[in-house]
Amino acid sequence: MSKLVVVGTVAFDAIETPFGKTDKILGGAATFIGLAASHFNTEVGLVSVVGGDFPQEYLDMLASRSMNTDGIEIVKEGKTFFWSGKYHNDMNTRDTLITELNVLADFSPVVPENFKDAEVVMLGNLHPAVQLGVLEQTPDAKLVILDTMNFWMDSALELLHEVIAKVDVITINDEEARQLSGEYSLVAAARKIHAMGPKYVVIKKGEHGALLFHNEEIFFAPALPLEEVFDPTGAGDTFAGGFAGFIAASQDYSFENMKRAIVYGSNLASFCVEKFGTERMQTITKEEITTRLEQFQKLTSFNIPS
Amino acid sequence: MSKLVVVGTVAFDAIETPFGKTDKILGGAATFIGLAASHFNTEVGLVSVVGGDFPQEYLDMLASRSMNTDGIEIVKEGKTFFWSGKYHNDMNTRDTLITELNVLADFSPVVPENFKDAEVVMLGNLHPAVQLGVLEQTPDAKLVILDTMNFWMDSALELLHEVIAKVDVITINDEEARQLSGEYSLVAAARKIHAMGPKYVVIKKGEHGALLFHNEEIFFAPALPLEEVFDPTGAGDTFAGGFAGFIAASQDYSFENMKRAIVYGSNLASFCVEKFGTERMQTITKEEITTRLEQFQKLTSFNIPS
Repeated sequence: MSKLVVVGTVAFDAIETPFGKTDKILGGAATFIGLAASHFNTEVGLVSVVGGDFPQEYLDMLASRSMNTDGIEIVKEGKTFFWSGKYHNDMNTRDTLITELNVLADFSPVVPENFKDAEVVMLGNLHPAVQLGVLEQTPDAKLVILDTMNFWMDSALELLHEVIAKVDVITINDEEARQLSGEYSLVAAARKIHAMGPKYVVIKKGEHGALLFHNEEIFFAPALPLEEVFDPTGAGDTFAGGFAGFIAASQDYSFENMKRAIVYGSNLASFCVEKFGTERMQTITKEEITTRLEQFQKLTSFNIPS
Repeated sequence: MSKLVVVGTVAFDAIETPFGKTDKILGGAATFIGLAASHFNTEVGLVSVVGGDFPQEYLDMLASRSMNTDGIEIVKEGKTFFWSGKYHNDMNTRDTLITELNVLADFSPVVPENFKDAEVVMLGNLHPAVQLGVLEQTPDAKLVILDTMNFWMDSALELLHEVIAKVDVITINDEEARQLSGEYSLVAAARKIHAMGPKYVVIKKGEHGALLFHNEEIFFAPALPLEEVFDPTGAGDTFAGGFAGFIAASQDYSFENMKRAIVYGSNLASFCVEKFGTERMQTITKEEITTRLEQFQKLTSFNIPS
């Protein structure tokens, strides 16, 4: 079985949407990525840090879904990273209310010995210096996937470029792609980002789906049109986790297979938004994923007789 | 050969985009719809009104592209409808600078005798009273397609509902679908609009593609990701025209065929935005449409072995 290293936050989130609000619940990029990737036949190793306030039951839940949590450092005297945000009525925009870095401020990632030979490495959204630290420990990776955000473009652009130059796949959203490239057209943006290093550029457009660029080829996976979006938190990470998990399990790094991986990413993300936080991600079954895959296939398939 | 009646504006547009600006050029919903529909094997009859200031060469151009212009009334002493708009830098939003109704203010549409038995009727964006007037003259239509906009929802909602109840297909954009239904989710919006009459609801999302709803089924056609969007004016009408032209030519009103029609609509719209006004629509060749169709097929096709 292949191995997939996932580095990112394991955190507390407090979320407010038009449908309600939560106290501190389980969140974090690595959590969502791991929960999505765990649906595929690959060994997932989480690399992160939490404080002494992080409930053992959360770690047990991750382990019970066959994730290896040895790489989650526990800083007993510290507090877990905490993010709080409030979504606007359109659910597409949000305000960050609180960001407490806590133990994340001094995080130095340690990849467990038996994951240093992982085939696939997923660098979840974190300081580029931390992402570089993980890359140094996983020199045998056949595919490195990077997720990042505008915050690092504003605050650590040089280091971010260093990471971007070393990865095979980058996943960012449309606004971030525009910021990173200085191009408004996503086709032009992808071309410029391509030239920064990554052979594959994935641009996430939220409810409008995702684009995969590779050389002059483009693939588009729609998001599933949903009756109701309850909480978008973690959808982008879930998308990346589904993508990484599928790719790692199949060990096929071709463009054709990347297309399938994008569809699986979109598939899993469509579940994530149905409930608060990780709630829905903890209950999905293989049958539900298969049924939804059929919906994705029907959604865009058409046949024009030539 | 089947017949397609197209009612809508034939107009002058003056457009400003980040790439430049035009004087008064040929525009109007019926013009764009007709130019798109004329690529399919159906007889297109335009129903509209222009003033004495409307150049004969424009009418000749339409006729030369095998459109019947007998239904375009010329009010010698009147002036042609004029619209002027300026696009913002993102090209997705625009300000209307000038709207001069002119001869449109008293327009009473007359469908030419030999088009009263048309199989397909495309009601382009116009006052709902005018659209109803056309429906009364085309009682044998097998498929009626309606395009409308928020302006009529604000100013003539009751009459608009009367039209909506009589049509088979409605095409509106996402914001308009939300306004008309009072629902934010497009799935919920489509369900409510469905209940107002139309068996098929097409929601246009501009650069994010288009959704086709029919009972509980959904089909999605992406927009082609473009290197550069030069002028979005008329793209929605071109989409509707490609849709209507394909459906009329094939005379197949099934859901499967509507999917193909949506893809052709998206195909033609992708050309429209490449130049100012109708410029690009006047030069497209059959080969270009076929090549772009292949791009559309590659864009969303994936294969997941079961």
